[in-house]
Amino acid sequence: MKVLCIGFGNVARSLARLLIGEPSQSRLLSGLDLQFVGVTSASRGCLENKQGLNLSHALQEIEESGRFEQKNPDFSELNSLAAVQQLDYDVLIELSTLNLRDKGEPALTYLRTALERGKHCVTANKGPIAFAYQELASLAAKNDSRLLFESTVMDGAPVFNLARTALKGCQICAVEGILNSTGNYVLTQIEQGTSLDEAILKAQEGGFAEADPSYDLEGWDAAAKISILARVLMDAEITPTEVSRRGFSTLNLDEIGQAVSTGTRVKMVAGARKRSGKVLAEVGPRRFPRNHPFATVDGTGCILRIETDLMCPLTIRQESPSVWDSAYGVLNDLMELGDGGD
Amino acid sequence: MKVLCIGFGNVARSLARLLIGEPSQSRLLSGLDLQFVGVTSASRGCLENKQGLNLSHALQEIEESGRFEQKNPDFSELNSLAAVQQLDYDVLIELSTLNLRDKGEPALTYLRTALERGKHCVTANKGPIAFAYQELASLAAKNDSRLLFESTVMDGAPVFNLARTALKGCQICAVEGILNSTGNYVLTQIEQGTSLDEAILKAQEGGFAEADPSYDLEGWDAAAKISILARVLMDAEITPTEVSRRGFSTLNLDEIGQAVSTGTRVKMVAGARKRSGKVLAEVGPRRFPRNHPFATVDGTGCILRIETDLMCPLTIRQESPSVWDSAYGVLNDLMELGDGGD
Repeated sequence: MKVLCIGFGNVARSLARLLIGEPSQSRLLSGLDLQFVGVTSASRGCLENKQGLNLSHALQEIEESGRFEQKNPDFSELNSLAAVQQLDYDVLIELSTLNLRDKGEPALTYLRTALERGKHCVTANKGPIAFAYQELASLAAKNDSRLLFESTVMDGAPVFNLARTALKGCQICAVEGILNSTGNYVLTQIEQGTSLDEAILKAQEGGFAEADPSYDLEGWDAAAKISILARVLMDAEITPTEVSRRGFSTLNLDEIGQAVSTGTRVKMVAGARKRSGKVLAEVGPRRFPRNHPFATVDGTGCILRIETDLMCPLTIRQESPSVWDSAYGVLNDLMELGDGGD
Repeated sequence: MKVLCIGFGNVARSLARLLIGEPSQSRLLSGLDLQFVGVTSASRGCLENKQGLNLSHALQEIEESGRFEQKNPDFSELNSLAAVQQLDYDVLIELSTLNLRDKGEPALTYLRTALERGKHCVTANKGPIAFAYQELASLAAKNDSRLLFESTVMDGAPVFNLARTALKGCQICAVEGILNSTGNYVLTQIEQGTSLDEAILKAQEGGFAEADPSYDLEGWDAAAKISILARVLMDAEITPTEVSRRGFSTLNLDEIGQAVSTGTRVKMVAGARKRSGKVLAEVGPRRFPRNHPFATVDGTGCILRIETDLMCPLTIRQESPSVWDSAYGVLNDLMELGDGGD
């Protein structure tokens, strides 16, 4: 499959490393024949080569220079949108920076354009799915292409994959979980006596918090994820701005430590539930007894509980995801496309 | 697809109910065109009809008479093995009674025979998979048929489905979990001050313990399940008898209650781990702090933690499975076959 990759940040680079056999995973390539014909970025330059780029060279250049240089024989003047519109590829891997304020743009336009051209799309970008899943899914169906996005919620841990295969035929009635790693890490730190500011700093130093912490701590990330779950698993058209949302600013931080001393834990939970045919979604703090599964999720861990009509509730738990988990999620989507006989 | 069903106990009856639209699930049938051409049982009589049996009538007869009667126009003199050998079907659903003492027989022979005839096989029977997965899998590959067994471990909760799709390309290094519902129920009861005998009686009254409790409590069920996991997920050829096994008889029951008073819980855990290329499997009691995910599993709940090379550890948790969960697992396997374009 010919691949165009939009964005060359951490997830894209980890994906490239998995594909070239780091860390010693060359066996993954068996059965997955990928040629990167283009890699674009908003500020680091773009590459294109109809015969396929050398991913090792691309990784080396971006690590050494921080960008693709004009002296690179594969350097391209195309911007991301032009590449999506003009290049010859089978799959668009959309890994540009998330932008909820602009309702998923420009990623939404990239995906729309690629799907209209009949290309498969894989994305780890929450914006387009949180704001326009139904539109994109019907575009995909109309153009006989597929749209996959396993990494948007809980990275590579199975969520959509699970719904597609293991829960086939089930109706999903409710989902709830701890979906924002940064927020959970900060809560765990505060429980241990760290101040909010220090905890945020630690998260930033650990590389899993944005420069602007409000995206995680005010529940926007979780709101985007619960919108995606509500849309994809329960066919509800909810946008992140419509999710009832209470973030850290609504918390009395002293209560977090007090909760621990009474044998409970405060957790930020995102949930969506069908009630009389309507799906309601919310993000906010909840207090759990210590023996509740959600209370056992420490640090950057995540958890998701799924209620269906045919099975007893299922819970998926992820211990401490890293960028490799996101990259694996994208790779899993690519393998799914590969299996489709493309 | 034409189906031959061996066994018509609880799981088979619940499956039949799901298929005829109880409890109000007729939508499940969309996309799944099944015709039961035979239903056999060891002691309740057999039915066959080339045009397809009426499942509602079969359910009604077995509920009312406890068996299929000779006056039923579809009554058949064939026994299970003869039906497997002679009838014209696409899928064998093998739901006969588990027999570990005879190393999975007679189910193993039924599956072997069906696979040799190029038929797909779906089973919820742990015996044949625990003793002979590799042999059966290569028979299936040779005869271009498929062997699916989602319900053998954690009922319909995704395990093999997950490995097939969501963990594709990953190498599984270790699995461990609470896999025996009855044992966990009994432990939970003992923690609450119930005696072992009373707890067993309660489990039997609840319908989830065998008449001979040693199968669950001495770890044979968990040993069969961990053998299956080790075979299927880690390609190790381990039989249940080779699993290092410590059951309830090795436990000091007083310690279970004492553990609770020190903020811990004793759980029966089955695990398999690769060490220097070899897979070691064991079943036995372990003590966990209250905030460990395994310590949050009450009653008949189950949990499985999976370590892979490419992702952070994943855990699947199932709250309180019933026979519907097993039936759904079989149905999910049938849907998987249906998707294969058969």
